[in-house]
Amino acid sequence: MEENTVVNVELLTSWIKNKEYKKIRHFFDETNIVDAALIVDELGSEVILHLFKIIRKDVGADLLSYLSSDTIEHLTNNLNPEHIQSLMEELYSDDLNEILNELPDELVTKVLQAATPELRKQINEFLSYEENSCGSIMSVDFVTIKHTNTIAQAMKTIRRQGKLAETINVCYVVDDLKKLVGSISLKDILFAKEEHIIEEIMEHDIHYVYTHDDQEEAAKIISKYDITSIPVIDSTKTVLGIITVDDILDVVEEEATEDIHKMGAMTPLDGSYVESSTKSIIMSRMPWLLVLMISATFTGSIISSNQEILVLLPSLAIFIPMLMDTAGNAGSQASAMVIRGLVVDDMGVKDFVKILIKETQVSFLLGIVLFIINTLRIGLFMPNVGWGIAIIVSLTIFITILLANLVGGALPLLALVLKQDPASMAAPLITTLVDALSLMTYFLIASYFLRL
Amino acid sequence: MEENTVVNVELLTSWIKNKEYKKIRHFFDETNIVDAALIVDELGSEVILHLFKIIRKDVGADLLSYLSSDTIEHLTNNLNPEHIQSLMEELYSDDLNEILNELPDELVTKVLQAATPELRKQINEFLSYEENSCGSIMSVDFVTIKHTNTIAQAMKTIRRQGKLAETINVCYVVDDLKKLVGSISLKDILFAKEEHIIEEIMEHDIHYVYTHDDQEEAAKIISKYDITSIPVIDSTKTVLGIITVDDILDVVEEEATEDIHKMGAMTPLDGSYVESSTKSIIMSRMPWLLVLMISATFTGSIISSNQEILVLLPSLAIFIPMLMDTAGNAGSQASAMVIRGLVVDDMGVKDFVKILIKETQVSFLLGIVLFIINTLRIGLFMPNVGWGIAIIVSLTIFITILLANLVGGALPLLALVLKQDPASMAAPLITTLVDALSLMTYFLIASYFLRL
Repeated sequence: MEENTVVNVELLTSWIKNKEYKKIRHFFDETNIVDAALIVDELGSEVILHLFKIIRKDVGADLLSYLSSDTIEHLTNNLNPEHIQSLMEELYSDDLNEILNELPDELVTKVLQAATPELRKQINEFLSYEENSCGSIMSVDFVTIKHTNTIAQAMKTIRRQGKLAETINVCYVVDDLKKLVGSISLKDILFAKEEHIIEEIMEHDIHYVYTHDDQEEAAKIISKYDITSIPVIDSTKTVLGIITVDDILDVVEEEATEDIHKMGAMTPLDGSYVESSTKSIIMSRMPWLLVLMISATFTGSIISSNQEILVLLPSLAIFIPMLMDTAGNAGSQASAMVIRGLVVDDMGVKDFVKILIKETQVSFLLGIVLFIINTLRIGLFMPNVGWGIAIIVSLTIFITILLANLVGGALPLLALVLKQDPASMAAPLITTLVDALSLMTYFLIASYFLRL
Repeated sequence: MEENTVVNVELLTSWIKNKEYKKIRHFFDETNIVDAALIVDELGSEVILHLFKIIRKDVGADLLSYLSSDTIEHLTNNLNPEHIQSLMEELYSDDLNEILNELPDELVTKVLQAATPELRKQINEFLSYEENSCGSIMSVDFVTIKHTNTIAQAMKTIRRQGKLAETINVCYVVDDLKKLVGSISLKDILFAKEEHIIEEIMEHDIHYVYTHDDQEEAAKIISKYDITSIPVIDSTKTVLGIITVDDILDVVEEEATEDIHKMGAMTPLDGSYVESSTKSIIMSRMPWLLVLMISATFTGSIISSNQEILVLLPSLAIFIPMLMDTAGNAGSQASAMVIRGLVVDDMGVKDFVKILIKETQVSFLLGIVLFIINTLRIGLFMPNVGWGIAIIVSLTIFITILLANLVGGALPLLALVLKQDPASMAAPLITTLVDALSLMTYFLIASYFLRL
């Protein structure tokens, strides 16, 4: 907790105790809502309940969007139903939806009981969308304009609907059957003549997503076409909601975190590292750690079944860690590049051959450089090892890099074909695989040389 | 190339050859500019030059923002200076800036020669901002309103300045000395009464960045406070530009890619994987591969200096790969979580102790589970190895996990203290380090047991 926060927590607590409502109101008027929420999160549980009875409803609703899930649970558990209902009604639909997604089921039921029939219907619809679908993150507060309207009529609609809407920067144009036919920016409306017809100046070529599409789909389109919002439609082309670029920013950050966690051989954590419980961190790390530990036994058995070679050439053992590490590093380099390429560039299964060719070229050149450096290093500076083994080791490195890069480049694509997340082909999995390949190559080459 | 693109490339080429200007114009009116650019990129180099002489200037400028850098180089090299100048003038300043950043120096000089004095001044200013600074990605097309204006006057300013501005959804309010004093959304202006004074309804609590701030700073603020744009100011609080959330989306994606590449032990690639040359891919992978290969020799020397223990207990060798892999995996798990936490959550050096405590708790519990499973697995299913070695191996795993998690958790923070990017404490570096620690532990425990 920052020092500033500590001071504010003490101030707020004393104001609430002494019923200095004017100061409290002034505090919330002057403080950014995100910062305010960070402070409220630190207040005592009784004090928070008291606070929510004092502040204006709209401030309370705004706060709710930024409070930690623990605080929200505490509030929904202890405020009376009417109070909850009035707070819910002040929230933008996507914020409400986000809050509900984080609450335990029994509290969601409590909120539903407190809601007006209309709000309840809306919440129920939201809850029926799958997690991470476009429907689950969209906002239903937006403005639609009829295609036959004039600019003047459109401005009237915007003034009427817009006050409640989360964004009015882009409005969606619908036909008589309420189907999406175009979009128009507020800027274009402002700069057009009053008597112009919307249909004549609207954008016809419009991007959209379906409620059941994955949120990543919306992120890809918004990022590719540099647009600020995208309509979410159903199969009849009726606009049910919008997703704005700031929601997408959260999606992109979340997905990158998930990918980084997966590539680090973990099930992605739901919350932040600091807030997550020890138990959830362990659950996220344990499975892969176990699987990889057991599968690494296979690599070990390669060593034990080649004991006789190690007895004949004992200095081979010194290079086992280096071969394993180099194999793992090369594999994780290739897989990290390909996995990220699949996410941000329009790369896909179609690029399979292109990727393999590229990895082969890269491997060949990397391999030659490492071969030369390694041979000279061992031959010149490790006289007790000798040039023969230097060449065995370097040749293994050359082949290992080729294998590791091909495996690292191909496995993420294989995951895609199997409809799995490419990031789940984590570096550690690839490491285990190419470790084994590398050691097999090592002993094959060594036994070949021994027979010479 | 998608089939659709192939068809469109052929169509466009034949239209250009046959001078069917109406069809070409219609094509660009109907096709999304991003898709159009993908098609134009595939046209022959002569055809592209011809095309730019045919299409309207504003379409050409729009296209420029989305064409590949190769195509842009070709165009700036071959179009006459007046043509380049007129295209440049149509571009939004941040797009122009992005294009110039990608051009080779001699072409930038050519563009500067072609520019009007006013435009040249603006370009020169942009070029003086450091790469990845807020100044280098900001747009200078925005609207400022005087604090003493009425809503009616503000609307006039917006109509006058706004046509050129990239976004008018948020306007920035300045005082008589042109210093930033607040912000106001277009929505609030639309819903306010004409005679209201801006100062009375504007937002006073406003976030901003300086031109020299890193772009990540802007990304953090925009993402934390859910705002759609942020003003970029100089030391006198004069607004020099704005950064919008869609620019930030690119920044966030770029930074995540950089982190993933660094964590995969690579220097981040500048372009996309498919577009990058084999040479640049090799240059990005070679350094770490070499450094880690050589440092892994140290791990190897731990094995060779403990040969006598391996001779006494040969079955110890079987478990070396498993110990190394488990150490590496645990280390990369901890570092991935902490590195990502430093980027997306407000984690920092202040959380050092908290992180170490958490990692110790996690390690302890993970270690116990792996200890039990591993002892039983070896003891029960590998009778030729025996319970004694099972316990040596499992005890090593327990200690290794503790060490690996502490090293993986602490190194990214150490990087932060040394003003380095935490992601550069890549998993492979940590792997090499904890591999060595793990083997040292292994032989220490084994020699202790042997002496018993």
